[in-house]
Amino acid sequence: MCPSDVAPTNGSENHADALSSPNLSTTHVAIDATTAPSSKSVPTQSNPYAPRYADFLSNTSNFSIIESTLREGEQFANAFFDTEAKIKIAKALSDFGVEYIELTSPAASEQSRQDCEAICKLGLKSKILTHIRCHMDDARIAVETGVDGVDVVIGTSSFLRKYSHGKDMTYILKSAIEVIEFVKSKGIEVRFSSEDSFRSDLVDLLSIYKAVDKVGVNRVGIADTVGCANPRQVYDLVRTLRGVVGCDIECHFHDDTGCSVANAFCALEAGATHIDTSVLGIGERNGITPLGALIARMYVVNPEYIKQKYNLPALRELENLVAEAVEIQVPFNNYITGFCAFTHKAGIHAKAILANPSTYEILKPEDFGMTRYVPIGHRLVGWNAVKSRVEQLDLELSDEQVKDVTAKLKALADVRTQTNEDVDVLLRIYHKHIKAGTLNIGEHSTLDALLQEHKGSKNGNGHLDLPASKKSRVEENGSLVTQ
Amino acid sequence: MCPSDVAPTNGSENHADALSSPNLSTTHVAIDATTAPSSKSVPTQSNPYAPRYADFLSNTSNFSIIESTLREGEQFANAFFDTEAKIKIAKALSDFGVEYIELTSPAASEQSRQDCEAICKLGLKSKILTHIRCHMDDARIAVETGVDGVDVVIGTSSFLRKYSHGKDMTYILKSAIEVIEFVKSKGIEVRFSSEDSFRSDLVDLLSIYKAVDKVGVNRVGIADTVGCANPRQVYDLVRTLRGVVGCDIECHFHDDTGCSVANAFCALEAGATHIDTSVLGIGERNGITPLGALIARMYVVNPEYIKQKYNLPALRELENLVAEAVEIQVPFNNYITGFCAFTHKAGIHAKAILANPSTYEILKPEDFGMTRYVPIGHRLVGWNAVKSRVEQLDLELSDEQVKDVTAKLKALADVRTQTNEDVDVLLRIYHKHIKAGTLNIGEHSTLDALLQEHKGSKNGNGHLDLPASKKSRVEENGSLVTQ
Repeated sequence: MCPSDVAPTNGSENHADALSSPNLSTTHVAIDATTAPSSKSVPTQSNPYAPRYADFLSNTSNFSIIESTLREGEQFANAFFDTEAKIKIAKALSDFGVEYIELTSPAASEQSRQDCEAICKLGLKSKILTHIRCHMDDARIAVETGVDGVDVVIGTSSFLRKYSHGKDMTYILKSAIEVIEFVKSKGIEVRFSSEDSFRSDLVDLLSIYKAVDKVGVNRVGIADTVGCANPRQVYDLVRTLRGVVGCDIECHFHDDTGCSVANAFCALEAGATHIDTSVLGIGERNGITPLGALIARMYVVNPEYIKQKYNLPALRELENLVAEAVEIQVPFNNYITGFCAFTHKAGIHAKAILANPSTYEILKPEDFGMTRYVPIGHRLVGWNAVKSRVEQLDLELSDEQVKDVTAKLKALADVRTQTNEDVDVLLRIYHKHIKAGTLNIGEHSTLDALLQEHKGSKNGNGHLDLPASKKSRVEENGSLVTQ
Repeated sequence: MCPSDVAPTNGSENHADALSSPNLSTTHVAIDATTAPSSKSVPTQSNPYAPRYADFLSNTSNFSIIESTLREGEQFANAFFDTEAKIKIAKALSDFGVEYIELTSPAASEQSRQDCEAICKLGLKSKILTHIRCHMDDARIAVETGVDGVDVVIGTSSFLRKYSHGKDMTYILKSAIEVIEFVKSKGIEVRFSSEDSFRSDLVDLLSIYKAVDKVGVNRVGIADTVGCANPRQVYDLVRTLRGVVGCDIECHFHDDTGCSVANAFCALEAGATHIDTSVLGIGERNGITPLGALIARMYVVNPEYIKQKYNLPALRELENLVAEAVEIQVPFNNYITGFCAFTHKAGIHAKAILANPSTYEILKPEDFGMTRYVPIGHRLVGWNAVKSRVEQLDLELSDEQVKDVTAKLKALADVRTQTNEDVDVLLRIYHKHIKAGTLNIGEHSTLDALLQEHKGSKNGNGHLDLPASKKSRVEENGSLVTQ
């Protein structure tokens, strides 16, 4: 389906409704007010990643995060959070700046109920939500805990209606309205979400959302519970829904097929207002949209908006805290904080990065308290990266000489990866003997002999009699640190 | 931009051209021939994840994988592949069934050249490609190695033109045509790709692709070198390009902002024919589209097509091989093979999974040689999952009794996660005493005493005098194995 086929006029009319709707969460309005001038203006050409023309339904610079590490994350295979761990994580999430923290239903167990009350009493900056089945028994327990809002969920797909709760759409709507009106009567926020939305009948879905919008729900939720949705499908569904309801739209995406981040982004493009995340993505099966990944994606669209809302340098510690609590390692390829996220290796990449980091980098490592690395002791190295190291070491070599020593470095690295010390020794010996006239360009066997000689003297406690570098800052893993 | 705004008539006309074009790679045509009836017919309603209406430009059931672990993957921070490792990985990739294996440029180092020749001589089922800069020096070395094709790349964005090679578009086009005609004259495949395509000028891009298509390039490539692209942007660019060239279209996506899998999928929807992957996604920075993730995504669209093309149960070993070679751990949340990919924990999930796995599972674990787990020793457990375990243990309890013992299990799990042995002991003691009349529903303090008594007798070498289960199959991590 073509997105722009979906009620273009209705869409904008409804958006106007939405902006003035009393249903919009206050947090959301607050963000709107503080960021309106920059977030809603046409992006400037200085950010090549932002759309060239503004779309006034898009919320890519105007959204809230519902952080569900303490609800969805508790459904992760390894998770067992005791009260102390929950409180630590809730505080860290609030310090990071997420707008909402979602907790396990107080109906799940007695300890879950007590923990929910304890977290509500912390007085955190983030609003506290709890997540319950669409049932009055659960709702009654939830509203007594002191939460700022209740997230209600029920399965609407034929799969879940048949194999899970066994109820029909009429029953679902009746319970939904009863629960929503009850929670609202307590003066707190309420969200109504379907489960497995992408396998639910579209007409059923829109009917129930329209009905709950009418009784004043604060948000409706779309959930890809099984991780089957794809980005254009998400865009179409959310944009259609945007034309049907005036309330906020929350989205929840599982990552079974690798689309949880892209789906969240497309949902915001289509007009969604709230995205569910968890730290490192922990949740049922392989989890949901990771908080760090969503931050990376949205930072690229509008860095200023993201830097102003969230305490980005705190991300790494937050991830380490949760990883430790559930006994996992942060994945090697984790967004932003993975050990190689800012490592540039190929020769052509390193050359350009050294000239201008924007060539191969769209996230500024310094904004996240991270550092860029350009390792050079490998066979893919180019002479420009070697030249940069030569300059850091305050050695004087012509381009022709740098190309010559690079060829030798590549030959050595073809046998084994060279450490930073190996590289520096090679460069210094080459420099010393080229300057002394005891080595000429292309004399690699002479260079081999000189390296062997040095190795011998080093093993015999000898040291290189060479000037120390003034500018070098060498890291443990043998890399150039370019800032 | 609306996808269907992009030259709908041109699109289909050009697709007709493409289908009859001599430029289509032979591998691709072969796949087309064997799978045409199922892949191009309108998907049946039995697969709720496939589009309801067929799009004849979409290649989601008609694509090839260019596996770049031995090229892009060599640019991963930790990677150093010696000849033996490269050969092992190449064989495993070919056995898995990838259509192409891409290798590091033979111009990178002498060992790279020798390894390229060695892999070409293995006679693998996969075609062998090498990846070079757009330069005659590199091309001359490449065509002598015995490869089936050469992938040529040059940066076209203003960033790279300014800070990397410093050449203008006229120069780029001239070199491209020279290299393409040279490689073609050797009777092997040639691809021309821009680098950083999503920050290149659209008119420049389309002009150069049109020109190289005219001189008979086999494929043009789009590369999101910095990981900034988003799915709808990818869809628009590929669909536009599909209307401009008749040759195949290859796409390469970095994962810096979490969209590499979704972008690959949207590229195929728009008419791309080849996707670049690497095992576990290893590559520059945090890498590219992971092979396993692409498989998960495409399996959901058309399981039969994927099962027929690739040896899915071999995926896990292939990933372990590469993880070991580059000294990383497979991420906890890895697609398909991560330890928790098929673990279902929340009560409502477990209940439905036990009734019908399709409720919360879109990948069949058995197709990948994996197993499903439903752990029950935690506070989120529901009584239906406990009932299932009761039946596996051949115990007879009424629903009311199961609900009662579930309440006790949740209370115990509120203090600490219960192992599978803990759960079984609880269920057996409860069953024994309920049947003997020495315990009644709700008498949880009596049950506590009985559990303590058992614990004492166990420490004193006592054993439970209870019938062994007939049907249970208990795994190490204390879970129900439901198949």
